[in-house]
Formats: sequence, structure tokens, C-alpha cells
Amino acid sequence: MNELVKVYEVGPRDGLQNESAILTVEQKGRLIDGLVEAGLGHIEATSFVHPKAVPQLADADEVMAGAIGRHAGYAAAGPEFVGLVFNERGYDRAWAAGCRSLAFGAAVSETFSLRNTHNTPQAALATARTLIERAQRDGARTRFYVMTAWICPFEGPISPHKTLALVREIADWGVDEIAVADTIGHADPLSVGHLIDLIARRIPLDRLAVHLHDTQALGLANAAMALQAGIRIFDTSVGGLGGCPFAPGAAGNLATEDLVFMAYKMGLGTGVDFRRLWGVVYELEALIGRPIGGRIRQWWESSQDHEPRIDFN
Amino acid sequence: MNELVKVYEVGPRDGLQNESAILTVEQKGRLIDGLVEAGLGHIEATSFVHPKAVPQLADADEVMAGAIGRHAGYAAAGPEFVGLVFNERGYDRAWAAGCRSLAFGAAVSETFSLRNTHNTPQAALATARTLIERAQRDGARTRFYVMTAWICPFEGPISPHKTLALVREIADWGVDEIAVADTIGHADPLSVGHLIDLIARRIPLDRLAVHLHDTQALGLANAAMALQAGIRIFDTSVGGLGGCPFAPGAAGNLATEDLVFMAYKMGLGTGVDFRRLWGVVYELEALIGRPIGGRIRQWWESSQDHEPRIDFN
Repeated sequence: MNELVKVYEVGPRDGLQNESAILTVEQKGRLIDGLVEAGLGHIEATSFVHPKAVPQLADADEVMAGAIGRHAGYAAAGPEFVGLVFNERGYDRAWAAGCRSLAFGAAVSETFSLRNTHNTPQAALATARTLIERAQRDGARTRFYVMTAWICPFEGPISPHKTLALVREIADWGVDEIAVADTIGHADPLSVGHLIDLIARRIPLDRLAVHLHDTQALGLANAAMALQAGIRIFDTSVGGLGGCPFAPGAAGNLATEDLVFMAYKMGLGTGVDFRRLWGVVYELEALIGRPIGGRIRQWWESSQDHEPRIDFN
Repeated sequence: MNELVKVYEVGPRDGLQNESAILTVEQKGRLIDGLVEAGLGHIEATSFVHPKAVPQLADADEVMAGAIGRHAGYAAAGPEFVGLVFNERGYDRAWAAGCRSLAFGAAVSETFSLRNTHNTPQAALATARTLIERAQRDGARTRFYVMTAWICPFEGPISPHKTLALVREIADWGVDEIAVADTIGHADPLSVGHLIDLIARRIPLDRLAVHLHDTQALGLANAAMALQAGIRIFDTSVGGLGGCPFAPGAAGNLATEDLVFMAYKMGLGTGVDFRRLWGVVYELEALIGRPIGGRIRQWWESSQDHEPRIDFN
């Protein structure tokens, strides 16, 4: 297997938290298991936030414990189930559920931070640093979201140097993976390439992921430019689910099927079985109750008659 | 006006030739005039092929003469109406209609050439060369399509060196503009960037256009990579109309509204008035009788409530 691109699946967390349909613990379990069977080895399974803030993920403890329970010892090197955590209480819950891969985050934009977390970026960072130090002592794997890395829905364009400064600070903490996030999906390919180029001069790109949304139909173009700039880790959401309930104008994440297809076209393997992935999309669509699926859907379905079978691995 | 990207509109030709609905001369006139009013200064208005081969364009003579008649002296530097021509008969018709901008073409792929034009690439090239020499004597502007520049529906991937050789030959003839065409829309961003890089080492990029189709949802990603590689001329089709009736699996051209939007996001002006362009899309959609419009449509329409007015010029 030629896994040159790491796909970090955020559908069960970033996707489901923005859907009005609330899935049961069992349905989420089936979704996660389907993703694992399709070859996705890194899955952000849930977020340990207050149930009142995100009722869609109120079952975080059960979902995480279930996923880990069913897949413990699945294989020597996988799969990894990540829990998003913003405070001590969330950390305690994640740890109790057996989660040993934790994601944290803070925004570059002060206004976004204040409206999203009712915290200044400085306060959010201080909290995150405490949590990360705890995770490092605990031997957990750590990931950090640099939110509004390009554009803030309230402040507009963010200076790349401001984003770079935050990325460097987080890198200095020894975080395992840093995801620069186009939180509302308003970034453009030139800005994406420019920021990655800037960051690449300071920190090794093998620790860097990009987290893209497809709000303005530029998700794949932005991903192509990030790939060209050296990024090999992409956050995507099965079916293109997602968004951000606190960010006006945000639409779905870049669809997993779109990124996997584009990487395949470029000769870069992802380890994902494309047909199985579509099976997950179709099952999820029935649960969600509205049409989902990436932009490649039309071609993929219309090509089944006349295109040869493609092995995406 | 900050027109850093030249948009070459192929909707009236490449778009309409693949639609089952056949527009009247008057409807085509309205379409062309609407495009001109939206700021599109280079429009491939029709193709002077045999009416039996492409019945949708059987009215080429009237459409071209009408467009030129209505817009002669419109402005010192525009608009340009281009006619596609594949033989002496077509050239005679175009010239008689007043057309002074002519497009020609040949395929890199031998199989595609044989099936599409019932000619070998060598024979197609010899014909094109004769026509181009005539156009140059006549003082006409010349454009050349290098078809199947990346992928042939019958042969599969085309060696970039084979495409490069054809591009260099055409460039030696002194053709004003060369469009490298992803005829069926199966190219990927890495291949697009690679070919442009190769060509850029041999001929100045200001003569080079890319002609992309959006079959596999990679149109914008491919355009972003071409732009990054230095391309500043893009063939697009209003509403994403188009395809190729002789190429199995080809879907619509890259939509004009998608490219214009992405260029705007990158800070590159196109001279196109985005709102007027959507007016043309909606009117065309009513005529065509099926939903059209680029991938940016969903965001554009949903954003009208809460986004500020954007000046795209």
C-alpha cells in the first residue's frame, strides 16, 4: 500500500456536530466502524464539550469507549480515535473513556475566540497549554487546531504572520500534529499556498495538517495547492458533512471522497477503499435525511457503467 | 480595472454544441450580447463545421455575422468573436461572415484524431497549417487547440513530451494563442502543473491558454495549479455548459463563474461583472431546460442574504 497522503477523518465530530439530525450511539458506532473498514486509520470520533453546547455529541463518552472497545488490538498500528477537548472536564471524560489521542485548539482571531469560546486567544492558549502538558505527561498523542488561520468571519483576512506566530508557539510545545484550519472555508488557493510556504520555512511539514471547508467550492483547489506546498495530512469529512455551528457562513468540510479521489489521480495513495467509502456515504445519507456526498459524486456514479474498475489503494 | 486573468468564453461554441436543446439564432444572439455586457471580451461564438456533424451550430454564419454586426465599433479594444474552423470550407464561411479571429486544432492522440476527425494527427496538422498560413496572410488572429493534451479517452495518459512537441511545433508557426486542452476533463492538478512547467521552459506563457473540463470535479484545482504555474488565459463556459460530443465521458467545461470567482478570491481581476454573469446563467438555464451553473452556485445564492456586496471588477 502506497499511503503517501494521510487522511484524518473528522466526520463523526466536525460533521455530526453541525447536523440537525442527531444519531444514536449505535448509529455513530456503525459510522465509525464503516470508516475503519474503508481504510480510514485516523478518526476524530467526538468532542468532549458540554452537552448543552453541542447536543449532537452529548454521547461522547459512550461513542469513544465503544469505538476503542471494538477496535482495541485491531491492528498493530491502528486505528486511532481522537477526542477533541477544550477544558479539564473534557479531558477527564476523554481519558475515562479510554481515549489516548487528544485534540485541542485556539483561534488566531481574537473576535472569533471571544464569540466562539467566550475567551481571549491568550486565555484559550493558556488553558490548552495546561491540557497539553498533562497529555504529554500522560503519554497521550496531541493535535492542535489553529482556527481561523486564513479568514475570520468577523475580522476578515488574518495576517499570515499572525497565524505563523501561533503555529510556531504551538510547535515549540512539542505537539505531535498541528492543523491549520480554514474554519469557515473562505480561503483561496494562493493564500493557502503562501501560508504553507511561510510555515514550511520554520517547522517540518510532516507535523502539519490542513483542515479545509468547501464553502466556496474551493476545497479541492486549496487542497491541491497545500499538497503542492508539501502538506501530506488532510482533514476531511465523509460525505462532505460538517461546518461550524459558531461560524456564520461555514459549510461542509472538504469531503473525504473528493480528497481521496484527487490524491489517487495524482498517484498518491491514501489507503482508503473508495467503493467501501461510498457505502458509508450512502448509509449515512439515509440517516441524515438529506443529500450528502462530495463533488466527485456525479462523475463517480455516472462512470460506473463505462469506466473500468479502479483500484484506489 | 485590474484584468490580470483573461477569460476566453467558449459557452456559445463548446457549450451549445453538446446540448440537446438547440437555440435559435436570436437566442444565441442574446446569449452572446449578455456575455459581452457581463464583461467577457473574448467569445468563441460558433464553429464552422458541417451542419450534419454538429446540428446545434448549423446557424454559424448568421450567429457570427450578427454578433459582429451588433458589436462592430463597440469599443476600441473589443469584443473579439472567434470562429472555430477545421477546413477550407469552414474558413470561407467564417471569413464571409466577417470573422477575423479564427481557432484551429489538432489532437495529440492518434486514436482520438482518427475517431474525432477521421484524420491522422499528421493530416489534421497539415490542414491546420495551410489554414493558419492563409489566416496569417489575411491578417486574422489565430488560436490553436492542442486536444487531448493530458489524457485521451481511448489511449489513456498522453506523454507530456509528446504534447510539448506539438505545442512547440504550433508555436513555431507563429500562432497568436495556443490552448492546451484537457478534452475530457480527466487531468489532475499535478499533471497540469507539470505540463505547464515543461512548456514554460520553451515558449512564453503569455501565448498559452488552458482549456479545462470539470468532469471529475477537478476543474478549479487544475485551474489553480495552472495559474500557479503562470497561466493567465483560461477557457471557460458560462453555466459550466459543454463537453465534447465525440469524447465519451466528457462533461461540462470549467464554469466561467467558478473561474471568475476563484480569480477574484486570489486578487486577480477578470473584468467580468459577477452579478451580470449570473443573469446570463439564469436566462440560459431557462432556455436549456435543465439546471446549470458552476460549483460556486450554492454558496453564491445562499450568501446573498448575509454577505456584503462584492465588487468583482
